[in-house]
Amino acid sequence: MNAEIVSVGTEILLGEITDTSAPYIARRLANLGIDVYFQDTVGDNYKRLESVINLAESRSNLVVLSGGLGPTEDDITKLVLAKHLGLALDTDEHALQKINDFYKSYPMKEPTTADMQAKYIHGATVLPNDNGFAVGMFLETKQCDYLVLPGPPVEMQHMFTKYALPILAKMASGNPVIASKVMRFFGIGETELEDQLKPLISNQSNPTLATYAKHNEVTLRITASGSKKADVDNLIDGMVQKVNAIVGKYFYGFGDDNSLAKVAVSLLKDKKLSITAAESLTAGMFQSRLGDVSGVSEVFSGGFVTYSAKVKENVLHIPTEVINDHGVVSRETAVWMAQNSKKILNTDVAVSFTGVAGPDQLEGHPAGNFWVGIALPDGDVKAKEFNFGKDRNEIRDYATKCGLKMIYDNLK
Amino acid sequence: MNAEIVSVGTEILLGEITDTSAPYIARRLANLGIDVYFQDTVGDNYKRLESVINLAESRSNLVVLSGGLGPTEDDITKLVLAKHLGLALDTDEHALQKINDFYKSYPMKEPTTADMQAKYIHGATVLPNDNGFAVGMFLETKQCDYLVLPGPPVEMQHMFTKYALPILAKMASGNPVIASKVMRFFGIGETELEDQLKPLISNQSNPTLATYAKHNEVTLRITASGSKKADVDNLIDGMVQKVNAIVGKYFYGFGDDNSLAKVAVSLLKDKKLSITAAESLTAGMFQSRLGDVSGVSEVFSGGFVTYSAKVKENVLHIPTEVINDHGVVSRETAVWMAQNSKKILNTDVAVSFTGVAGPDQLEGHPAGNFWVGIALPDGDVKAKEFNFGKDRNEIRDYATKCGLKMIYDNLK
Repeated sequence: MNAEIVSVGTEILLGEITDTSAPYIARRLANLGIDVYFQDTVGDNYKRLESVINLAESRSNLVVLSGGLGPTEDDITKLVLAKHLGLALDTDEHALQKINDFYKSYPMKEPTTADMQAKYIHGATVLPNDNGFAVGMFLETKQCDYLVLPGPPVEMQHMFTKYALPILAKMASGNPVIASKVMRFFGIGETELEDQLKPLISNQSNPTLATYAKHNEVTLRITASGSKKADVDNLIDGMVQKVNAIVGKYFYGFGDDNSLAKVAVSLLKDKKLSITAAESLTAGMFQSRLGDVSGVSEVFSGGFVTYSAKVKENVLHIPTEVINDHGVVSRETAVWMAQNSKKILNTDVAVSFTGVAGPDQLEGHPAGNFWVGIALPDGDVKAKEFNFGKDRNEIRDYATKCGLKMIYDNLK
Repeated sequence: MNAEIVSVGTEILLGEITDTSAPYIARRLANLGIDVYFQDTVGDNYKRLESVINLAESRSNLVVLSGGLGPTEDDITKLVLAKHLGLALDTDEHALQKINDFYKSYPMKEPTTADMQAKYIHGATVLPNDNGFAVGMFLETKQCDYLVLPGPPVEMQHMFTKYALPILAKMASGNPVIASKVMRFFGIGETELEDQLKPLISNQSNPTLATYAKHNEVTLRITASGSKKADVDNLIDGMVQKVNAIVGKYFYGFGDDNSLAKVAVSLLKDKKLSITAAESLTAGMFQSRLGDVSGVSEVFSGGFVTYSAKVKENVLHIPTEVINDHGVVSRETAVWMAQNSKKILNTDVAVSFTGVAGPDQLEGHPAGNFWVGIALPDGDVKAKEFNFGKDRNEIRDYATKCGLKMIYDNLK
């Protein structure tokens, strides 16, 4: 079974927005074992959209159309497909009610084409839009199957996962229940993770495993299908255990929306531990990442950016001899930075960063050489050396994540 | 004249990487007045790639192929196109030399297909690859014109701008010289910028103006063509002046790779002024942005993250009465934070941030309400209130940029 993804929208065609929906859909289909051979982008133009539909149905079993379901005159996807297939448009009463209710309570003129959003092609299964107004649909025809999805990612991704996936999974595997879990890893590259998990990846068809490189991280999506929810969950949980038996030291959490900062802050909150930081190399990036997490003020009240040696001495009271004897890029400086910032702000935990962002060397150390220190509630202070030979801002991002992972490793 | 963009690569097709090249090329073509009607993505598969080429040349005057020029067996774009057109592949000796030199000095086995990267289709104009090995090409045929570009954005964008653009510009406008300049704005939205510049945008065909929304910023690309470089530069400079006469207060610099942080740091360096910061709302993001800029240590030696009121009092020595009387979200607190951090670290400039990141209110202020303070070399301290009603991390990014723009506005 092979699929084709058609992105509809003049803004994508002109490069005004980058299409993230096609890659999302492609990944999810690949995960189901559905091959994608072609992707097309076409504007909001009747003739050209129909020509693409015509072509796609001639060479693919499943045609996924995304975009062009909105309330404006430009949104013509359903119209073009219905006319092309010679089928009528029906109205989903529930969706229509939702649209009417909205414009009743909203001080905005209802577009004349607003009710197009509630239409679906006669015979199709309606896919509700929990995050918007335009319904999607799944339609089987003699030529091929059509999946029609809205363009906005927040609407499309939710509709895909909740309503389209079960239909596609049944088609692809014969199983009505499908679920997936995303595992997150830090400190291992995608190729290395794939290599280590090769025995699991190649011998498995249910669950399937797929790795994705993120910004200095890797995620693994485990997808299973079956006839009952409990069986599917068991398959996934069993696989999580097998994966962690091999690469558990790099694992830190579940979920597509998760992050090292969220995991670290939630651990600190659970254990009621306050934190501060002294940042040289990262210049505030670590504390800013803590600040990304809503509610962090429960455990974080502030910290220091100590970029120069002088500020390390004057603000953090690090003895001049420590820096003179060992240099700023050293275990000793990292340890003093962590322990003194912890003392000054009287917190339970403190993390420190010192090293070379580059592009130039520092004290004979190459760019990418850095130390992360962590002062723990029991008075213990640890420091770890890292080498990460990329560009300045990748090094700083990586160092920030090393600090967050050290919180996880030491407090979990 | 209408164009079609074909992205070649199985990784794009499977959603493993997001295609940013197609939107880039689409924008640049739109800027030349070349319409893009279709985009296609196809994997590294001989038959399917040829079918897409076949289709594209039947419906488009210009077919832009990007990707599949590398040294592996999978990289088949040139091969497929040459066979499709019944033309031979010639070798660019300069490119071949570069490849051979590289593998001579590098401890890595040369792929057997490495020299494919130096090949071009007989009769084509070779486009050198200054950032890599695979040459691109421009080829006119009876059916249509072909532009073949490498996949990696850093190679493709440079080749497009330096070598393809002049050819396309001449084709599109009849003028051999084309140049463009990117102006950057902060504090104005894309729609508002377009509205204000409407008289310039709609009455101009040379130069053309195109706006692009960036992360809480907007850029404007001015593109002009002509027969002589000096004339083209004059056209652009004249337009820059007209634009700045209307929206100059939001302008801060030129260039696609520029940023508010770079502009602010380079101003500080030029004027030999040191800087520090006291960050509440932004929790280190402002200092981290300074740290993004290589060489910032000349003017930045450190600063403070003062998230809680207590740390504002204990570390920055802000009198308790100031916070009690005015609240932390106030002009007074912003002013004290800036002036005391400047005093403690003995710098020429200090910037402070205090406000509500949300999602919850603070002291009765809604999320998105914040103050930015700046203490200047002459002893003056200013503070400005902002309201930016988006989500937590957008508010923090925006606040950081407000601080950088205040440096620019006050020191330029």
